[in-house]
Amino acid sequence: MGQTLGLSKRELLARAREQMETEGSRPSRTLRQRVALACRILFDNGHDSGLAGQITARGEKAGTFITQEFGVGFEETTASNLILVDEDLSTLEGDAMPNPANRFHVWLYRTHPEVNCIIHTHAFHTATLSMLETPLVISHMDTCGLFQDCAFMQEWPGLPFGNEEGQLISSQLGDKRAILLAHHGLLVATRSIEESSFLALQFERAARMQLLASAVGRICEIAADRAREAHDWLLSEEKRGLIFEYLARRALKQHSDCLS
Amino acid sequence: MGQTLGLSKRELLARAREQMETEGSRPSRTLRQRVALACRILFDNGHDSGLAGQITARGEKAGTFITQEFGVGFEETTASNLILVDEDLSTLEGDAMPNPANRFHVWLYRTHPEVNCIIHTHAFHTATLSMLETPLVISHMDTCGLFQDCAFMQEWPGLPFGNEEGQLISSQLGDKRAILLAHHGLLVATRSIEESSFLALQFERAARMQLLASAVGRICEIAADRAREAHDWLLSEEKRGLIFEYLARRALKQHSDCLS
Amino acid sequence: MGQTLGLSKRELLARAREQMETEGSRPSRTLRQRVALACRILFDNGHDSGLAGQITARGEKAGTFITQEFGVGFEETTASNLILVDEDLSTLEGDAMPNPANRFHVWLYRTHPEVNCIIHTHAFHTATLSMLETPLVISHMDTCGLFQDCAFMQEWPGLPFGNEEGQLISSQLGDKRAILLAHHGLLVATRSIEESSFLALQFERAARMQLLASAVGRICEIAADRAREAHDWLLSEEKRGLIFEYLARRALKQHSDCLS
Amino acid sequence: MGQTLGLSKRELLARAREQMETEGSRPSRTLRQRVALACRILFDNGHDSGLAGQITARGEKAGTFITQEFGVGFEETTASNLILVDEDLSTLEGDAMPNPANRFHVWLYRTHPEVNCIIHTHAFHTATLSMLETPLVISHMDTCGLFQDCAFMQEWPGLPFGNEEGQLISSQLGDKRAILLAHHGLLVATRSIEESSFLALQFERAARMQLLASAVGRICEIAADRAREAHDWLLSEEKRGLIFEYLARRALKQHSDCLS
Repeated sequence: MGQTLGLSKRELLARAREQMETEGSRPSRTLRQRVALACRILFDNGHDSGLAGQITARGEKAGTFITQEFGVGFEETTASNLILVDEDLSTLEGDAMPNPANRFHVWLYRTHPEVNCIIHTHAFHTATLSMLETPLVISHMDTCGLFQDCAFMQEWPGLPFGNEEGQLISSQLGDKRAILLAHHGLLVATRSIEESSFLALQFERAARMQLLASAVGRICEIAADRAREAHDWLLSEEKRGLIFEYLARRALKQHSDCLS
Repeated sequence: MGQTLGLSKRELLARAREQMETEGSRPSRTLRQRVALACRILFDNGHDSGLAGQITARGEKAGTFITQEFGVGFEETTASNLILVDEDLSTLEGDAMPNPANRFHVWLYRTHPEVNCIIHTHAFHTATLSMLETPLVISHMDTCGLFQDCAFMQEWPGLPFGNEEGQLISSQLGDKRAILLAHHGLLVATRSIEESSFLALQFERAARMQLLASAVGRICEIAADRAREAHDWLLSEEKRGLIFEYLARRALKQHSDCLS
Repeated sequence: MGQTLGLSKRELLARAREQMETEGSRPSRTLRQRVALACRILFDNGHDSGLAGQITARGEKAGTFITQEFGVGFEETTASNLILVDEDLSTLEGDAMPNPANRFHVWLYRTHPEVNCIIHTHAFHTATLSMLETPLVISHMDTCGLFQDCAFMQEWPGLPFGNEEGQLISSQLGDKRAILLAHHGLLVATRSIEESSFLALQFERAARMQLLASAVGRICEIAADRAREAHDWLLSEEKRGLIFEYLARRALKQHSDCLS
Repeated sequence: MGQTLGLSKRELLARAREQMETEGSRPSRTLRQRVALACRILFDNGHDSGLAGQITARGEKAGTFITQEFGVGFEETTASNLILVDEDLSTLEGDAMPNPANRFHVWLYRTHPEVNCIIHTHAFHTATLSMLETPLVISHMDTCGLFQDCAFMQEWPGLPFGNEEGQLISSQLGDKRAILLAHHGLLVATRSIEESSFLALQFERAARMQLLASAVGRICEIAADRAREAHDWLLSEEKRGLIFEYLARRALKQHSDCLS
């Protein structure tokens, strides 16, 4: 007993990731089901702000995207009422229009080929922070998934319906996974539905923490090397999958209708 | 594909509004049902403060108004327990008295013929902000429905039961859609039940954002021309209808009794 | 129509009170039922803080008091599990002991013969405010029931189990209806269960408003004469009864077990 | 009547403790049931932060510990899905791995033989406070269980998976019952599941109070001798048992599945 008490942290971290890989299996779900689940997870975690906010995921055919019907809330979205649109936001499958603000998603997918899922919301604390025109501060282990991975757009270009907004947001996102849009909200653009969902939750949590802590005093910086280590662990496929499954189980307890 | 990626924002916005007009149809509801729905929407969105607050809507006959029974909460109001009163607050239909504070509503209807629905509440964050005797600040896209459209009454005239209060609030509201009443609450007076409900929700949201953000630092201004564009979009009939229907669906999930 | 639009505020206020007297009737309830209802109302409105806090009401025989069993939460209290104790906190009816902190209630009843019900809680925002050793500020119409009617005890005498605490709190309460106890909580002592319940709710609301507003800036004073007018209206028997009935209806929707 | 109104506080306190001992009896529960109950109590009281946070309790055999499966939330934990691990975090009973962050628990048990239960969470307000690198302030009677009993670790050593973190936290905890870990969360290590649960709840409450109050002004100190008296009362076996039973009853109303 106590044989591992002499191992280095690097060795222990590698051991944990190996062990996680061999454990359990994930339920198999369709693309639409995963998007619908993400909608409910967002709703349950403070991303409800009326009809503002959208999620998109690349469809199977290039230049197509899965997204919600305009006018349907995150908590009403199901695998079957999601629609498929093209780059002009014309509906290919389903019989409703998408939110015209999806236009800037199209621009992001064009300029970021590695991105497969974009989440944009006006979560309350993020929206509030965005009125201060100040970048998101990451100072807690749990939100390190966004450490040095969140851009900031200080200019508010107005209603995000034009092609200009798409070009602007694409260029300011750069190679980050997320961006804080002043006077507007958050955007997360990553490889997968699971990663974007997780980071959207951490974004809003970080914004809420920042508001509360900043009202008291100066938030202290964290050591960059350790924060990057936490960043990589939190975004590792093993850890991300574990978290998404947990969030999915919680969502399904209340929203069993979303998969159909 | 990608044929619209060269269109101007103005063209895209017009396209979106046209497209929305041709989509779907709204359920048909009576005046009383719409008022009762508004009560539940207000209750579910932070406008519950005991028995404070009232909604009124012009009745079919001039000088008559639909309102709640005094002593009945927003969440208890139904199409059938709403009462009809005259300008003296005498009950014409129903068998209970209205809140005597409805008196200033009467003055507002007299001086603002374009107004068809008034919502007055003591929503928590609005009430809290009102103790600072400072105007409402609009610095986020979502609350632009109130941009340059919210007056401020710095004087608290006391219990709002007198005719004086009616004259004072009417004159200070001027041609705005809303007013922040110091040491008191919010008032929204617009063309329709749907518009007043939507703006009351945005008002409380804006007040909560202002309190949280101001505790941290100075809220930054937004560009007035873009904010006015957002204002007009948010208050367009198409957008407003879409939002009210969404809020109504949410309310009806919990409050199916309100329509009867 | 419009015949009352020339009446003075004083006339209108008198009219409203007269009209309220003639309206409806209140359900008849036993003393124990009213205390149990008050417990649930407190629980539902932010006065839950574990097992801290007690309510007492004078029993029918002098020197006896109705109170909760020690260890039973506000949301578990029913008309039948309330106990009757004497001035030594010995149980006369029921088979459990009361909270030893009830001792200072006894002292208050001895020194304040007009008082029939005392509510003491550690509601979250009141408790938080109490760490700043600053008096409660009343700057909103809705909380005027406490205007110039809330004392402040800056010294924390420690656990409130001794007779000293009873003497101290009694003397510092003076002729007010309420007192903020530093590092501790709130106390309301009035003529009736209904009045104490209502003021306990307003106390916590006022404390929460004060914390949020003070984090932003200086809270503005309200005109004392108007605040006193609001004070008297809010505490009038008609208004108080209306509010308690409303709160009771809300409580009974969730806690129908409390009356038995 | 009134025979005890002359007794000293010391006498009254002793009387209360004696009386509590003779009252009622507690339900008998297995170790696993008590741990599962603690998980639900934590979940219901703001200690939910995704999959972060763990509870451990010493198993019957030396060098063994009961803990949750990695990937299972506090609200999903039951007596039967808890696992038993050894000091290498190898699973002895159950078929899943523990959270690798349990490693520092092992170090704490090695260096603190009196400790039988450790709770570590990233409760929201504690996590937020921890970004300010400032110690927990105890200024309210209810949170005195942590008065002079909460250490502070200002350095964030990064992901807590290494043996180094275990050594560091053990040494900084010293002889206190709790510690605030900067940029991380809280840790409570005491004699029993009941005591650790209670103090974890008080910790988060104290952190939330500190954040809110500090945004307004300077929190005032409490008298150390009285705070120590309150500390001992709150942690007395009688009081602690009463509170845990109350929290357990509340948890079981919603989570009746946790005992099986």
